[in-house]
Amino acid sequence: MKIALAQLNFHVGNFEGNFSKMKSAIADAIKQGADIICFPELAVTAYPPRDFLEFSDFIELSNQTIKRLTELADDIAIVVGAPSINPVIEGKDLYNSAYFLAEKKVLHITHKALLPTYDIFDEYRYFEPATSFGTVTYKGKKIALSVCEDIWNVGNENPLYTICPLDESIKESPDFIINISASPFSFSHADDRLDTIRKNTLRYKVPLFYVNHVGAQTEIIFAGGSVVANQYGDIYDEMPFFKEQLKVYDLDEVSSSRQNQIRKKEKIEMIYQALVLGLKDYFGKLGFKKAILGLSGGIDSAVVAVLAADALGADNVRCILLPSQYSSDHSVNDARILAKNLGAQYDIVPIESIYGAFMEELDIHFRGLPFGLAEENLQARIRGTLLMAFSNKFGNILLNTSNKSEAAVGYGTLYGDMNGGLSVIGDLYKTEVFELANYINRNKEIIPTNTITKPPSAELRPDQKDSDSLPDYDILDRILFEYIEAQKSPKEIEEMGFDAKLVARILRMVNINEFKRYQMPPVLRVSDKAFGIGRRMPIVGKYLS
Amino acid sequence: MKIALAQLNFHVGNFEGNFSKMKSAIADAIKQGADIICFPELAVTAYPPRDFLEFSDFIELSNQTIKRLTELADDIAIVVGAPSINPVIEGKDLYNSAYFLAEKKVLHITHKALLPTYDIFDEYRYFEPATSFGTVTYKGKKIALSVCEDIWNVGNENPLYTICPLDESIKESPDFIINISASPFSFSHADDRLDTIRKNTLRYKVPLFYVNHVGAQTEIIFAGGSVVANQYGDIYDEMPFFKEQLKVYDLDEVSSSRQNQIRKKEKIEMIYQALVLGLKDYFGKLGFKKAILGLSGGIDSAVVAVLAADALGADNVRCILLPSQYSSDHSVNDARILAKNLGAQYDIVPIESIYGAFMEELDIHFRGLPFGLAEENLQARIRGTLLMAFSNKFGNILLNTSNKSEAAVGYGTLYGDMNGGLSVIGDLYKTEVFELANYINRNKEIIPTNTITKPPSAELRPDQKDSDSLPDYDILDRILFEYIEAQKSPKEIEEMGFDAKLVARILRMVNINEFKRYQMPPVLRVSDKAFGIGRRMPIVGKYLS
Repeated sequence: MKIALAQLNFHVGNFEGNFSKMKSAIADAIKQGADIICFPELAVTAYPPRDFLEFSDFIELSNQTIKRLTELADDIAIVVGAPSINPVIEGKDLYNSAYFLAEKKVLHITHKALLPTYDIFDEYRYFEPATSFGTVTYKGKKIALSVCEDIWNVGNENPLYTICPLDESIKESPDFIINISASPFSFSHADDRLDTIRKNTLRYKVPLFYVNHVGAQTEIIFAGGSVVANQYGDIYDEMPFFKEQLKVYDLDEVSSSRQNQIRKKEKIEMIYQALVLGLKDYFGKLGFKKAILGLSGGIDSAVVAVLAADALGADNVRCILLPSQYSSDHSVNDARILAKNLGAQYDIVPIESIYGAFMEELDIHFRGLPFGLAEENLQARIRGTLLMAFSNKFGNILLNTSNKSEAAVGYGTLYGDMNGGLSVIGDLYKTEVFELANYINRNKEIIPTNTITKPPSAELRPDQKDSDSLPDYDILDRILFEYIEAQKSPKEIEEMGFDAKLVARILRMVNINEFKRYQMPPVLRVSDKAFGIGRRMPIVGKYLS
Repeated sequence: MKIALAQLNFHVGNFEGNFSKMKSAIADAIKQGADIICFPELAVTAYPPRDFLEFSDFIELSNQTIKRLTELADDIAIVVGAPSINPVIEGKDLYNSAYFLAEKKVLHITHKALLPTYDIFDEYRYFEPATSFGTVTYKGKKIALSVCEDIWNVGNENPLYTICPLDESIKESPDFIINISASPFSFSHADDRLDTIRKNTLRYKVPLFYVNHVGAQTEIIFAGGSVVANQYGDIYDEMPFFKEQLKVYDLDEVSSSRQNQIRKKEKIEMIYQALVLGLKDYFGKLGFKKAILGLSGGIDSAVVAVLAADALGADNVRCILLPSQYSSDHSVNDARILAKNLGAQYDIVPIESIYGAFMEELDIHFRGLPFGLAEENLQARIRGTLLMAFSNKFGNILLNTSNKSEAAVGYGTLYGDMNGGLSVIGDLYKTEVFELANYINRNKEIIPTNTITKPPSAELRPDQKDSDSLPDYDILDRILFEYIEAQKSPKEIEEMGFDAKLVARILRMVNINEFKRYQMPPVLRVSDKAFGIGRRMPIVGKYLS
């Protein structure tokens, strides 16, 4: 028996596009002699469809797509994820289901039992958990279907859940398991997946075919990396990361082989590729081609410009240099060199005269008050406004260049440098931005060395340095990580050797700046805890603030 | 037996403040001879604590507060909501619990079974549902405790759930029921609560004491309106809306009375009071006093100014008039008259010269291109930037004045008029803003009549009217309501008598503007479906777009 895994890039709500993509993959798989083709979890709607699931019209369109796929399930069986309607009045209206289409009908359907409802996941918002499990027999083979999270409580190791679905379906002695997934990328999560799959095959002593989404839906990036493992716990194949692929596997060969083909996963390289894919899909799925960004000469905007040029082509990236009276000469030079290195268009728009016009109107109201935060933010907002003027005029989407460290402590101007349709590096701490810059320059100097080595500065007043108001980034980032990712208490963080006053100050900065992050653009997610929909914090809260 | 209901305004994460408030209510209740005092759901942490619940330090602080309350449970029993730790490793770490504190110990604890996970609610993100139910006996009375949603599936009428918790605890024949709630306000929901409570008492034939939160946590407003009902289904008392109150009830009196004391609930009056409370608490809980807003002479900013003056005092509201070359004379006049009527400070800051400075710098880049969206948005962004300059300089929080109709169709400028810490009327359709303006003027003209009667206009180019690009608001708002609140399909909306092309155009506008609403300030929620955390939509989606 031959099983095809279709690791494809779907688009939320684009039923026609998703169907076409599946149709041609089915034709391909038939050509390659596949008996079964497997598409990922909720492939019909793409993942995550979010509140579109509450619209019965949307569900109807999904059902129609399943019907069209059923018509194609003639010479081949199709495993595909889509919502299905819960026939019982009690409980949520939908199941998150794996359909088994064959002989031009729905031969079998398995619902998901473990519904992730944490971080970016809201599945219990929409779906009723499955309570019964079974198998389907096709061409003499018994197959256990499962959906994503349902393989993640193997041996009841996951404290989140009380049941282990495959412990039930395995009672029917399936020949192999198919798992269809939509498992988002995070750089620290990539190897967990292999461990989990290995554990399942060792426990159930049958091969497992795991197919994952690839591609980004706004901020959530799916890496692909689909896996075929056999009953010995060997990883027979791991499909590429960040790329579409259709591949056909022979069940006997998988079962009899002892090969282990695991891909090397380097953190920074994966992050780079994830962000490029995230950018590409954001533009592609919205139907836009061209980006714009403010290039300051600093490291954040430099890294974003490189990523954008890689994702969209340098021709589609327009860089705007927005110097003020506080900008250093080297900033403009560094920015210009970078734009030239990339081959991207750049323009210089000085903000001094506009700043002067603002201050003239404000003079009567601000008279006698010293230069301060208002004047600093004003410069950032003039820049944000100019960038949006270009964006509106020429149809370029503005890229946000904030990093995770500054977003965390509120070191950024709302409606100024926090502007943008998409935050490209908002899930990277400043120290990780440096790592990424060095990775970019690994073969030759694309980002000017001076951009990487000079002390970070917002350049909003004379001789300003980030270190005037923030601790060194290597200390700041470690404290932030312990609080944001590890959710440690102030006391626990102090006990790791950090100054108690500093810890209190940093954690307070994080918590009182929730109002800013609420209005931040969506952030391409590459870590286990990104700002945005996966981190839901009160704004008027009084904890550590 | 005397039962006190403490309908109080708590503050998320403010354990010290919440404890003090409870302590003085307990002293009061003891003075009034109460045997039991009841505080709302999650009163210790305030509702909703959101992802703070994931911090074990936060849970520890909550547990300490429960301990301190236990010490006070000497002459009186205390019913209070707080998270409790799930002792079993499987399942979520916490329960959403009602503690019964008496004799200086935790005499009993009931966990919530029905965990709302829809709209603004994320309870299954944090809590394990209860599976067993019981009662507690105190001073010879048997009491069934329950938490909020657990009374909302009476007779299994609610299709969301599969169990009815009180059907279980009633088997122990309690003398009465206590329900502690955090049930958010929406103008269409206020009477549902009475119906539900009535149904419960008629089904179980015992009195029910229902205590609700009052006050706002950022966008979510709790109205109070706590209820005492008896075994005949009579509403013995309904506590005030939008006000704190401690009130002691005699069980015998409740049981033997046939009075029905239901408060009148007028939609627009309730909305007015809800928004005032929402404003007051947003400022109060963040420790701010002063607001600023742009007064255009139009109806939206006028209504927001009135609400702000009522909530914060006219002395704390600063109005900025920001005329351009496209502003009509009457706009400035109308705005000035309103500010004077309110007794609020106002300043005029013309934007023409700043606009000129921008266009001068942009001239070389925009040369030859006609005046368009970029130039319109530029004006809005200059205004937004000026308002933020005042906000930063003087510590006034900027109020957003967008309404729900324009937020829905994207008729607003991101980083311009969409700026603000809080969207005050973002959950009111334009037609409802008119109703609110008329309500404000019911006794005398506060908002100039001209502001209400003139055709709405953004005044960003000569003779612009909203009706140039949008249908009449009475049509637009009905289409929007059917799509946003009622989640109807284009076809269903057409069948209500609307033009098919118009419906398609409007729904497309809603869906392609998700990126704007993602960066919108939190919106005070008064309807069943507000923009913000209760409506979670894909940005790169392709449905109806």
